[in-house]
Amino acid sequence: MQTITSTRNPAVQAAKALQTKRGREEAGLFLCEGEHMVAEAIANQPQGIAAVFIDQAQAERFQPMLATVDSTICYAVPAHVLSAVSQVKTPQGIAATVRLPKSATLDDLGDKLILLEDVQDPGNVGTILRTADAAGFSGSILTQGCADPFSPKTLRATMGSIFRLPVARVEGAAEAVNVLKNKQYAILAAVLDGENFYARVALPQRLCIIIGNEGAGIRPETAQLATHRFRLPMRGGAESLNAAIAAAILMYDVINRGE
Amino acid sequence: MQTITSTRNPAVQAAKALQTKRGREEAGLFLCEGEHMVAEAIANQPQGIAAVFIDQAQAERFQPMLATVDSTICYAVPAHVLSAVSQVKTPQGIAATVRLPKSATLDDLGDKLILLEDVQDPGNVGTILRTADAAGFSGSILTQGCADPFSPKTLRATMGSIFRLPVARVEGAAEAVNVLKNKQYAILAAVLDGENFYARVALPQRLCIIIGNEGAGIRPETAQLATHRFRLPMRGGAESLNAAIAAAILMYDVINRGE
Repeated sequence: MQTITSTRNPAVQAAKALQTKRGREEAGLFLCEGEHMVAEAIANQPQGIAAVFIDQAQAERFQPMLATVDSTICYAVPAHVLSAVSQVKTPQGIAATVRLPKSATLDDLGDKLILLEDVQDPGNVGTILRTADAAGFSGSILTQGCADPFSPKTLRATMGSIFRLPVARVEGAAEAVNVLKNKQYAILAAVLDGENFYARVALPQRLCIIIGNEGAGIRPETAQLATHRFRLPMRGGAESLNAAIAAAILMYDVINRGE
Repeated sequence: MQTITSTRNPAVQAAKALQTKRGREEAGLFLCEGEHMVAEAIANQPQGIAAVFIDQAQAERFQPMLATVDSTICYAVPAHVLSAVSQVKTPQGIAATVRLPKSATLDDLGDKLILLEDVQDPGNVGTILRTADAAGFSGSILTQGCADPFSPKTLRATMGSIFRLPVARVEGAAEAVNVLKNKQYAILAAVLDGENFYARVALPQRLCIIIGNEGAGIRPETAQLATHRFRLPMRGGAESLNAAIAAAILMYDVINRGE
């Protein structure tokens, strides 16, 4: 393990550059923070770890989880250097730079997919990926209009599911839906004027649920490509559900109530 | 409608004081921001409106929604005065101070309840209240350890459901559970080592779902009072669900799948 004492060190500067989407894309790297996320990165993407920064005061505590990591890419740093790298107010003692995974392709996403069309809130995107992983969905598709899945806020909300659930990036939802329809996927759109989701007839094994933008919902041109249009009942006074909540209810019901 | 031009005006100062929980409790008021929330406040708590601050440049636009509001409590203000009152970076043209509702009592919450034990994230608390309202749950119970339901972040996440769903405040969860058990409510605890929620036998009509703290889950002393202990299946790699997500899946299934 090397020691870095200055925030001007090139490895520190390179990690700092990952705070923006542009910086991440230029470097082909993203930043994982905290014990849980770094452990997930090491477990799931062992070849993808580019550098690990460890608060020197806590180095001993992190020793066991770093046993399998090449020590030449591990850096012990004072707290102020970790703060410079970190994107949170209270750095959690460890951070790692990790290679951005390639976009998955629509060919190898499996039978149960969630497609996010322009879901803009990083917390919603991250929470949906976490929930899809928990439910047992096999893959996700994100349009360019979605929050970046590798931004710090999104990553935190995924709680590590970003390392397990395949993510395919597409320009727009319509192109993805057309490809999936050719592969005989049922395409489910959650819309306010659809049929009652709970009164549905059994769905095919292969299916993709579309979740739309928080304010505008699913684009009309995307919704009209759907093979099934469902609404979730609103028995109380609320007019709508949060996007991540609607996604969770749909995914858990599809997996556990028959299809 | 009166005009206020200075942030030193007592009405403006009084509204600013509502930014803290202590300020809200001392004044017995909270602040609603934006067209949607203010409209919900006027529709649902017409007697509770204490003051309305309107960006003078947008006064005409808000005229119709203020038709039923006493004009002597409406204030036209320049943008910088609205900014002083506001708790968001980009004020949305209108804000109102509204009387804090009294805590509901456990006697009049109805048959379908959600109890939040020390749920600390304001977004989670607000989202759960919104989802409970949408699902058709009849009431909610919040322990003192929960995020304040009248903080700006929580209010925003409720999307107005705070005005429709009764909220009872209790010191701890155990006291509430004991009262509810005496009234023959089934008490459902979401725990990681419970029985499969989807394999349950039919539940009684009267029930209360407990959602625990984001990090620690339901306190053991509360969980042991439950009449039913359920887990949501995790078929993928994720270890847990976000608290608001788990609450939503449980509530929607209970309402729409039989009970």
